[in-house]
Amino acid sequence: MDALVERALLGDPRSVARLISLVEREDSASADLMRLIYPRTGAAHTIGITGSPGTGKSTLAARLIASFREAGLKVGVIAVDPSSPYTGGAILGDRLRMQDHALDAGVFIRSMGSRGNLGGLSGATREAAHVLDACGYDIVIVETVGVGQSEIDVVKVCDTVCLILVPGLGDDVQIMKAGVMEVADIFVVNKSDRDGAGKVAADVKVMLDLIPEREWRPPVSLASARLGEGLEEIIKNTEAHKAYLTSTDEGRSRRMAKIGNQVEEIVKREILRRVEDEWKNERSGGALEDIEKRKTDPYAVAEALLNKIIK
Amino acid sequence: MDALVERALLGDPRSVARLISLVEREDSASADLMRLIYPRTGAAHTIGITGSPGTGKSTLAARLIASFREAGLKVGVIAVDPSSPYTGGAILGDRLRMQDHALDAGVFIRSMGSRGNLGGLSGATREAAHVLDACGYDIVIVETVGVGQSEIDVVKVCDTVCLILVPGLGDDVQIMKAGVMEVADIFVVNKSDRDGAGKVAADVKVMLDLIPEREWRPPVSLASARLGEGLEEIIKNTEAHKAYLTSTDEGRSRRMAKIGNQVEEIVKREILRRVEDEWKNERSGGALEDIEKRKTDPYAVAEALLNKIIK
Repeated sequence: MDALVERALLGDPRSVARLISLVEREDSASADLMRLIYPRTGAAHTIGITGSPGTGKSTLAARLIASFREAGLKVGVIAVDPSSPYTGGAILGDRLRMQDHALDAGVFIRSMGSRGNLGGLSGATREAAHVLDACGYDIVIVETVGVGQSEIDVVKVCDTVCLILVPGLGDDVQIMKAGVMEVADIFVVNKSDRDGAGKVAADVKVMLDLIPEREWRPPVSLASARLGEGLEEIIKNTEAHKAYLTSTDEGRSRRMAKIGNQVEEIVKREILRRVEDEWKNERSGGALEDIEKRKTDPYAVAEALLNKIIK
Repeated sequence: MDALVERALLGDPRSVARLISLVEREDSASADLMRLIYPRTGAAHTIGITGSPGTGKSTLAARLIASFREAGLKVGVIAVDPSSPYTGGAILGDRLRMQDHALDAGVFIRSMGSRGNLGGLSGATREAAHVLDACGYDIVIVETVGVGQSEIDVVKVCDTVCLILVPGLGDDVQIMKAGVMEVADIFVVNKSDRDGAGKVAADVKVMLDLIPEREWRPPVSLASARLGEGLEEIIKNTEAHKAYLTSTDEGRSRRMAKIGNQVEEIVKREILRRVEDEWKNERSGGALEDIEKRKTDPYAVAEALLNKIIK
């Protein structure tokens, strides 16, 4: 593994890809890898881009990649798809338009499922972002469809979360319901040439007024990814958010919270793996039948299992 | 608590409501309650109704409630909403139309959040359904918006999952992506008076052909909740699915899998609670700062924490 890591750290894209495949497996080898590369992380700015289908996330991501490249930065992209047993993994779909950058050695694009082996956890996405960070990508973009809890969990791992809205989609309430609003650090109203874009921006500002005042108030900007307008402001906003994270006490405590969250998730993942192993042995012993006949109950069986696992 | 449980088991709606509030708290008292009532469960038929916003789930649910009431059955309804810190709980929204039944003592309606105290788990919903089961509701309907993983997890707790589709919403791919197709036992194409309803039904059937053959093939029926058409067939399909669950080996093993799943979730919930408690003590000791300075890494800190918790 050491030789592979060495090649990846030197920037060899095929080795980077193999490291990400390794973290996707979420087994003990992936933990070993992460311990090996963790000291090399910390330089990248991880930007999450989320929004409903049809908001133009991929077009916007492609534009941002181009801007970052012009500034001489290396960009890693993780495109997260809600995976489904039907499709056997990630659906690429409109991500294909990011192929513009496919031949650029300064851009690394990878598609990942959002569920992971252990159900809905964002661990593998975070670890893939760390791999890209360690391997010298200055900007890591995590793009995901902002429709469900697992997608929100995924985007939470980023330093800066950018939520894309558009006029006329009529799913504003849906977005509010799903809790995406709360995790956004930056709002972009895309398709600004359409009627109602200003209204959407104004609505978001009204909603932001309802949140308890913090040092960072998420900026709301208009853009047209298609026409290439409004990109400078988005980049300016992401940079301002990065400065807030590194230079203010509040920003620092938010970074600490994310690190804490990561430790908690690693512990949970390990414990859940342990529970699943233990339960596989246990369930064959007739416990389920006894519950079904109401001879016992799921809580009693769970307690016995717990006592086997925890101190 | 015993007096409260006794009143609830006798069918007092206010006591039922208080028991559900108790299970929503997901603390040790809720486990005690569940152990107390579990022997009384097992008679109800739990039906999950899911679909995207705008598919007419609530109107359909209201129609089904009316049909079940005409047949002399008591009906409990759990309306699950993706909860959000902004609203402080569940959004009722269009569920209001179920208020038609608000004055009927044979109908109990309760709105719950989908996230739960412990993040995205469906435990409280399942337990609320058990409470309604024990308290003599013959049919328990769990209605939820089928957009994310946590909503899928919620609906999985039901005996029979009914997925509502409509023509012209154009989110078919979205639904497939989200993995809702796989959990559906019955498909209903609502708004059958609209163009394209037959096409949606045909598309679903084509997709069902792709699933490995099982004893239960999900039926697909057309309905118009607004016009009150197609309800008999939906009810006939739910009854057929119930018969399949109780009278075939495959159905029985699916019920067993759900019980197994429940035990596993209870164990996980308890362990995660334990992890959170332990980690609260630990994180104050400078571990986060050490990770940030790359003096250590999240995996090493996680391992130390794990060793404190598990045998």
